[in-house]
Amino acid sequence: MPSLPTLLATDLEGVLVPEIWIAVAERTGIERLRLTTRDIPDYDQLMRERIAILHEHRLKLADIQAVIDTLDPLPGAREFLNWARSCMQVIILSDTFYEFAAPLMRKLGQPTIFCNSLEIDAGGNIVGYQLRQRDGKRYAVAALRQINFQVIAMGDSYNDTTMLAQANHGILFCPPANVIAEFPQFPVHTDYGTLQAEILAFLDSTA
Amino acid sequence: MPSLPTLLATDLEGVLVPEIWIAVAERTGIERLRLTTRDIPDYDQLMRERIAILHEHRLKLADIQAVIDTLDPLPGAREFLNWARSCMQVIILSDTFYEFAAPLMRKLGQPTIFCNSLEIDAGGNIVGYQLRQRDGKRYAVAALRQINFQVIAMGDSYNDTTMLAQANHGILFCPPANVIAEFPQFPVHTDYGTLQAEILAFLDSTA
Repeated sequence: MPSLPTLLATDLEGVLVPEIWIAVAERTGIERLRLTTRDIPDYDQLMRERIAILHEHRLKLADIQAVIDTLDPLPGAREFLNWARSCMQVIILSDTFYEFAAPLMRKLGQPTIFCNSLEIDAGGNIVGYQLRQRDGKRYAVAALRQINFQVIAMGDSYNDTTMLAQANHGILFCPPANVIAEFPQFPVHTDYGTLQAEILAFLDSTA
Repeated sequence: MPSLPTLLATDLEGVLVPEIWIAVAERTGIERLRLTTRDIPDYDQLMRERIAILHEHRLKLADIQAVIDTLDPLPGAREFLNWARSCMQVIILSDTFYEFAAPLMRKLGQPTIFCNSLEIDAGGNIVGYQLRQRDGKRYAVAALRQINFQVIAMGDSYNDTTMLAQANHGILFCPPANVIAEFPQFPVHTDYGTLQAEILAFLDSTA
């Protein structure tokens, strides 16, 4: 019998495109938008802080989208993604928001992405957000395995490690040193070439 | 609160591309490949019959792929799909096989597709097949709703009706008369323009 069909579940920021909030901080010059969960561990409090900062600076969704539209995928990301899409199914699993991801998805050839939604008022201001579900990456991988996909998951940070563990094969791509140290069970790659070889070797081992 | 993100689950054959076996029958001149579940109700028996016919005519996977590569998406399908992918997530749910769908997926801009797999021997012959799971379209829609997508499902035939019923909103596109008669609960469209309007109206009603 042939093996199950394979699906690559990949993180977005830090793996295929730059970190969006960091890029927005750099391009708007608003240093406080660099805040991450390392500074404010509670994600909801962090997001409310970010939304308050945008209001202070009278930045609407369209302004942020214009900034994001100046970003490009990481060098080699488009080629890697095109290769992956030509030989297996690919779904991007991200904690970002559809409204932020849209300009980048156009540049990546409209891959499928499962992420979250912003709440926008009639004036175009960001007034809230909605997580599709808590620990959404892990649940998405679980749902895909439940309908009989063999799932390879790749990501760069803590918030990816539960989906890497849930997958048939988890790979860290360009992770920080502390994530490497804490999760020695996952192979680590820092360029798309060796990543592609790792994926091909896994496919060979399960064919 | 914003509504849940929307995902369009769409059938492939008869909806976005021609019926693949019928096209292969026409282009190879092998009339018996026109057999459908109307002639042989048991799907496994039908597939074994089709595989036997291919062997008789010494047709390998590569030959069938070459025939499929001469097919084009239905007129307007590519534009409809591009529109849908620009404003929601789209996954094609099909009973075909990855090995057959591949040439058509390239022509449609590599959308994500959940379907089945063929078993190919070392000589390139089709020797079997593997369903990812029974009633796979319905289970895929159920899994996508479970991870909090609002799912619109569209298809043309009997084997789509369980996923249409499982979705938040089911639409029949170019169905035969008997399916229309038996499933009056689903709206029916026969061109992409009114289909798009139906989808937009549904999105408006849930925004």
